[in-house]
Parts: sequence; structure tokens; C-alpha cells
Amino acid sequence: MDPDAVARAFVEHYYRTFDTNRAGLAGLYQDSSMLSFEGEKIQGAAAIIAKLTGLQFQQCQHNISTIDCQTSGPAGGVIVFVSGSLQLAGEPHALKFSQMFHLIPTPQGNFYVLNDIFRLNYA
Amino acid sequence: MDPDAVARAFVEHYYRTFDTNRAGLAGLYQDSSMLSFEGEKIQGAAAIIAKLTGLQFQQCQHNISTIDCQTSGPAGGVIVFVSGSLQLAGEPHALKFSQMFHLIPTPQGNFYVLNDIFRLNYA
Repeated sequence: MDPDAVARAFVEHYYRTFDTNRAGLAGLYQDSSMLSFEGEKIQGAAAIIAKLTGLQFQQCQHNISTIDCQTSGPAGGVIVFVSGSLQLAGEPHALKFSQMFHLIPTPQGNFYVLNDIFRLNYA
Repeated sequence: MDPDAVARAFVEHYYRTFDTNRAGLAGLYQDSSMLSFEGEKIQGAAAIIAKLTGLQFQQCQHNISTIDCQTSGPAGGVIVFVSGSLQLAGEPHALKFSQMFHLIPTPQGNFYVLNDIFRLNYA
């Protein structure tokens, strides 16, 4: 496994899906998954997708600035750390954000998101 | 274990030590530890401390804005996600940063840093 390739492919897939079909992110989370979104903790795939699809903005575009990744422990996990900006439809300025994901391999050879922490970087 | 209490205590200890006695961070890392510092990957406690103590600035002050934490997996790990600003001595403006740590429990009942990713948030 090349963790950098995993991280790049995940980031590309995650934000493209977020920006075009947010409900399609459901397959990336499991019942044990946890999202911290601007300080609010949400557990489980169903609640996470309800949160993400219920955000006030309907159209957005993520632009990625940096991707860092590291393997995490002997179980094949990958930690992905992203910085970028989020452009909301109709807003004049993009919002800077940072986000991290802890990806865990599945028996089927894919990865799911165990930990997801998102924060806007206020200037 | 209360992960929020672990995260708060770790963050307080980590940045106080960084700002007053950077070499004192050595006890928080092990040979398996990995630091990504502005995209540069450094493995192992000795190399990580050499990197941190060799940074060009000698005096700095971290101010923390947000702390998020989540448990990570059955092994008692804690993920800590920090945002804040870094004031360097003699510089007019503080630098915004984001940093994440994956803390792993030790047999002695403490935690060490397995993963550490640091990024400045350029405006």
C-alpha cells in the first residue's frame, strides 16, 4: 500500500462527492465513525450523512491546498490531513478550512472513515 | 478515560513545553513516531526533536483557539486536532496553524505521540 496514493485518491473522491452528491458519502462511513464538525460531535454513518446533507448551503466547491498523510499503527490505517478553501454559492469570499480523516482498511480492500474532524480557519 | 480531559491536558503540556523548553518534548515521542512539518516527514523521537529544536526561531508563543478530540479504535488511542496562532519573537503578525496528534497509551498509563501533522494556514 502506498499511503500517499491512498490519501490522494481518497481526497479527490471525497470532495468531488461532497460537491456533487453529498448523500453519496454514506458508503465511506460506518456505525463506529465519528465526525466533529465545527466542534459538534456526530456518531454513525446515518447521523453523519444527515448532518452533511442538512447543512444550510446546497452548492459548494472545495479547493485543496495541501494533503499530508501518515500510516497509523500496524493495522493499515492511514491518517489524511487536508487544508483548503470552501467556496459557497453566492458568497464573495471562500472560507479556509482544515480537516483530518483516519481511514481504516475494510476486509473488502477499501477504506472507511473512522475519524473525521472539520474546522473552518477564521482569519 | 475521558478523552476530552486527556486532550486538554496534552495540549496544555505540549505547547507550554514547546514554548519554554522544546527539547523537553522528547519524552512524548517514540521511535515509531512520525512528524509531518509543513510537508516534510520526519520519523523517530531523536530526528523529530532535532527538527523542532533546529527551527530558525528560538522564541515563540502558541495561542490555542480550538481543541477537538475523538477516541480512535479499541486500543485507547486519542486523536487531538488543534487550531491556533503562533507568535514568533520580533514578528509583527502571528501565524495561524492547524495541528493534529494521534496519542497512543503506554503500558505505564501515559500517552505518546504516534502521529503529528503540523501546517501553517496561509491567508
